[in-house]
Amino acid sequence: MLQKPLPTILTMGEPSGIGGEIALKAWLSSHDTLAPFCIIDSPNRLQNLANSLSLAVEIIEISNIDETADVFSHALPVFPLDLPEESLPGKLNPANGAAVIFAIEQAVKMIQSGQAGAVVTNPIHKRSLYQCGFSYPGHTEYLAALADILTKPVMMLASDRLRVIPVTRHVSLREALDMLTPGLIVETVLTANQALLQDFGLTAPRIGISALNPHAGEGGAMGSEEATLIEPAIKELQAKGLLVTGPHSPDTLFHEEARKKYDVVLCMYHDQALIPIKTLDFDTAVNVTLGLPFIRTSPDHGTALDISGTGTASEKSLVAALKMAGQMTLNRSKNHTA
Amino acid sequence: MLQKPLPTILTMGEPSGIGGEIALKAWLSSHDTLAPFCIIDSPNRLQNLANSLSLAVEIIEISNIDETADVFSHALPVFPLDLPEESLPGKLNPANGAAVIFAIEQAVKMIQSGQAGAVVTNPIHKRSLYQCGFSYPGHTEYLAALADILTKPVMMLASDRLRVIPVTRHVSLREALDMLTPGLIVETVLTANQALLQDFGLTAPRIGISALNPHAGEGGAMGSEEATLIEPAIKELQAKGLLVTGPHSPDTLFHEEARKKYDVVLCMYHDQALIPIKTLDFDTAVNVTLGLPFIRTSPDHGTALDISGTGTASEKSLVAALKMAGQMTLNRSKNHTA
Repeated sequence: MLQKPLPTILTMGEPSGIGGEIALKAWLSSHDTLAPFCIIDSPNRLQNLANSLSLAVEIIEISNIDETADVFSHALPVFPLDLPEESLPGKLNPANGAAVIFAIEQAVKMIQSGQAGAVVTNPIHKRSLYQCGFSYPGHTEYLAALADILTKPVMMLASDRLRVIPVTRHVSLREALDMLTPGLIVETVLTANQALLQDFGLTAPRIGISALNPHAGEGGAMGSEEATLIEPAIKELQAKGLLVTGPHSPDTLFHEEARKKYDVVLCMYHDQALIPIKTLDFDTAVNVTLGLPFIRTSPDHGTALDISGTGTASEKSLVAALKMAGQMTLNRSKNHTA
Repeated sequence: MLQKPLPTILTMGEPSGIGGEIALKAWLSSHDTLAPFCIIDSPNRLQNLANSLSLAVEIIEISNIDETADVFSHALPVFPLDLPEESLPGKLNPANGAAVIFAIEQAVKMIQSGQAGAVVTNPIHKRSLYQCGFSYPGHTEYLAALADILTKPVMMLASDRLRVIPVTRHVSLREALDMLTPGLIVETVLTANQALLQDFGLTAPRIGISALNPHAGEGGAMGSEEATLIEPAIKELQAKGLLVTGPHSPDTLFHEEARKKYDVVLCMYHDQALIPIKTLDFDTAVNVTLGLPFIRTSPDHGTALDISGTGTASEKSLVAALKMAGQMTLNRSKNHTA
């Protein structure tokens, strides 16, 4: 018998941000189609938010993750979390920082104990957490530490039309140029390939590798990194049997015809990846962390403190993140069963 | 009485490339909708090409550009050019190089003498022309020399959905970082603004300036060029009364909602501009040279020697270039009449 896929856990994120609002809206707009999820959050806070924003969502407190599926069809299941102080929209309160972190830890424990299939993280406010002693650059590094892994996690942005992976991420363009090595490219692609096999239902992922320079360097006339860094990495990956091609001219990889040729495009720097996916799917791109032992997605936006509490936040990216987490959980369980 | 807009001149380009084929196809597919154009080319060569590719286009040799409009409705008007040797598809022949250059010179002379309104250039093969003593990096620089201008021309890529201008162009990404200065940004925007007013029917062009680094540098955490180079340029341009905003995070400028806010986006390097426009409009993006005293557009592709003569070349980008040249000619004549 095929086991029922495990539910997804959504973390609270920064309580003064839009996380609660978009969670309520995501349940409201999409509970008929999404795989069941519960949120680790303060039930009181969510109830007040639903009331103040006139969102007709019933909140049901659960004491065990197993109850998620039964509750989900008619109410938003909430695994309760105590907030030491009231959280007001748009007003950061460091007194609640520990609860933000605790929600993430709880979610990871629930996955590690086999109760949950995936974690979707609502946005956190890094600078606020640093004030409470949080010492990780962000969510991803914290999750990697909780998971106790040795390789670096890989960030993928995915929508229905495109998947992109930036080899270098949140650094200046000049630093990105200095960080690029064949080893980093190889390691990133190996992690990505493994995840695409395991969680995305692909049997032989086709990976397009972007060049760094215009026209892929045009034979050295516009840059040498293609020959010195990218081609050696491609040769090494091809020798391992991966379906890797490139380096392709960066402006030829993202139009409709090109998108049919690749399951994912590996990009050399942040905006080479983010520009095309945000051009195509600004509101529905999902951030997926590859290389963790568990499934993790997140909406591709921040806490949006400026609009928090106004009722204008869009749940689209969160819905896409929940949908992708559900699909990945299903794919992984099929792979384990097979 | 409003004067009839002047015709557009299309140059032959590299005769062994796809220029002739796409010119025939452009007339065939679009002579009902395009403003009249004539091509400077060998009538024999074009007739042979039409025959071999079974393109039902009548070729009519004209001896004066004034005849273009009358001929255009039923035939492709050709202003004759002698080719010293026969040109075979895909086979570069340096003996014909001088004729390639002569076609460009002729086109410019026809504009300068008031016979033509715009020039659309078919792709040339630079390395082949270098063998005939051509000493310019490309078309744009040659046209600037013929026009005898002091400021540098600006490259704009334009489609129906987006206009982008790369401040730095065909250099490695590392060189682009080194070339960026507030002066270059200011000069580029001033040239672009003038052209948008004159040739694009805009009364107050809204110019979005992209950042260089991810998240626009995030307050210096991911790069300093926003503060040191781009913001000073923006302040200077705003002080001159231009509708300039930024530096905007590079991945927030190109989706549908964002595109409504800007008439053009100024980008810091080649692929920051080319990736979004090629993602959206791969086949119909047009290359427009701003800052010349005359109107010049070109299809955004090369000579495509590999497919020349096979009949598979797409005329879409050339049609878009001809259409844009026609519109720009109309806008400029309206501005002169007004």
